Amino acid sequence: MSERYDIAIIGSGPAGLSAAINAKIRNKKYIIFGNKELSTKLIKAPKVNNYLGLPGVKGVDLKDAFQKHIDEMGIEITYERVNNVYAMGEYYSLMVNDKIYEATTVILATGVEFSRPIEGEETFLGKGVGYCATCDAPLYKGKDVAIIGYNSEGEEEANYVSELASKVYYIPMYKGEYNINSSIEVIEDIPERVIGDGSVTNLQLKKSEVTVDGIFFLRDSISPAQLVPGLKIEEDHIYVDRTMSTNLKGCFAAGDCVGKPYQYIKAAGEGLIAALSAVSYLDKIK
Amino acid sequence: MSERYDIAIIGSGPAGLSAAINAKIRNKKYIIFGNKELSTKLIKAPKVNNYLGLPGVKGVDLKDAFQKHIDEMGIEITYERVNNVYAMGEYYSLMVNDKIYEATTVILATGVEFSRPIEGEETFLGKGVGYCATCDAPLYKGKDVAIIGYNSEGEEEANYVSELASKVYYIPMYKGEYNINSSIEVIEDIPERVIGDGSVTNLQLKKSEVTVDGIFFLRDSISPAQLVPGLKIEEDHIYVDRTMSTNLKGCFAAGDCVGKPYQYIKAAGEGLIAALSAVSYLDKIK
Repeated sequence: MSERYDIAIIGSGPAGLSAAINAKIRNKKYIIFGNKELSTKLIKAPKVNNYLGLPGVKGVDLKDAFQKHIDEMGIEITYERVNNVYAMGEYYSLMVNDKIYEATTVILATGVEFSRPIEGEETFLGKGVGYCATCDAPLYKGKDVAIIGYNSEGEEEANYVSELASKVYYIPMYKGEYNINSSIEVIEDIPERVIGDGSVTNLQLKKSEVTVDGIFFLRDSISPAQLVPGLKIEEDHIYVDRTMSTNLKGCFAAGDCVGKPYQYIKAAGEGLIAALSAVSYLDKIK
Repeated sequence: MSERYDIAIIGSGPAGLSAAINAKIRNKKYIIFGNKELSTKLIKAPKVNNYLGLPGVKGVDLKDAFQKHIDEMGIEITYERVNNVYAMGEYYSLMVNDKIYEATTVILATGVEFSRPIEGEETFLGKGVGYCATCDAPLYKGKDVAIIGYNSEGEEEANYVSELASKVYYIPMYKGEYNINSSIEVIEDIPERVIGDGSVTNLQLKKSEVTVDGIFFLRDSISPAQLVPGLKIEEDHIYVDRTMSTNLKGCFAAGDCVGKPYQYIKAAGEGLIAALSAVSYLDKIK
């Protein structure tokens, strides 16, 4: 089917970038998923004092230094969102909207900026609740769907679903112009609870309620436990040992998602370790 | 006696410097021991590709970036060699030639460039074998001493000892001009074995042998196990957990001395973690 990568890196913050640099240096076939801003947390940082070698740097300048580094090394980021990662035994399947990528090892560098699930969300996961509207759209042909978008990328997914579904409600969790089809009904309200009976029947919002068959939460990032079924979580973070190995063979993690301190150079150091551990794992199973 | 520091950092490579930066940011009373070149390994590195944010940098330029960072933050390195660190219960005593420093916590960032002990050296440690000639000089008044110097700093110690000892042999392990007193006998040979009977009697070299009461090895750095009695070593490196805590309460470690990969940004990341763990330890025992 698709070509298989040696290393798939999820996240383009300092941990993911540092992992990519080292995967490239070690001549591995890699792919890195992320976004154009690299790290939304980093670009908002007013000043970073403790990134050794770059004293008193502004977050946005640190981001530019990172971009320059990967540009000079010819590293290109794939601007796609990984919705699920499944351990297939000898490799991992990464679900990315309508595509599937395969990789022998995975490095999770997803940060910590994920919001908590709302009431009922986890109960009805797979029973009407989903995180990838375009993936599951065919299931909702002729049905009613609510799409909760945490950034403008959600608009595209809403447009796509609206071509199949009978009714689409779009609930934006951000401010701005919404570039959506006229058939979509925008609700400016805050989702509070998923209601159902075997499967989803309603979405209760702060000021209203809608009757729907499916609800999609399109967050900036999803929690590691939701992303990778079977992943061991310890005190709200991905469990790793000193080699950045998770409990799943061939799956490594680095940066904020593995725990505090939430600091850039700590993340970069861990990204390096994760990449070299992945390389050593790949060499061993050859 | 001496003022007590919150944090004493041993080593001025990336791990030590990163620890110092964070100790300073957290407003702790700290001291960092190191040398003018910061890291002899770093300045010899032709090119570093994987220090995220500083692409394709020469080792010496990375060292300059580190120096600039600590200069801007007003961090000054104490150019002294720590010979021993003793856990005293509530604090640590750091033996530095004729001085003693006290610190509530210690961060070991000593790297890995230490040479292996020669035959008999560990057997006679404290029974004629020592690592600080100026500390122990009074014990050798009127006696014969061999001083094995691994760099020019050894010459100063040899000169000091020669004022008390009956005879001093200086065995330089480096090339250069030796700025030593005329009473000192230089032997250009390689030490192979410490011989003794209860305590040291002879030093056997490759081509000769000398009869001595004491032998000092003045290496660039000493092994962590010799530096800190009681420290747990695992596979030739200091044992640490994910918070960079060693088996000794209040003693942390970071960088090459805690294990591979031997990489600058990994060391810097660990130095940060060690410093923040020390800060959190200090806050807890307050």
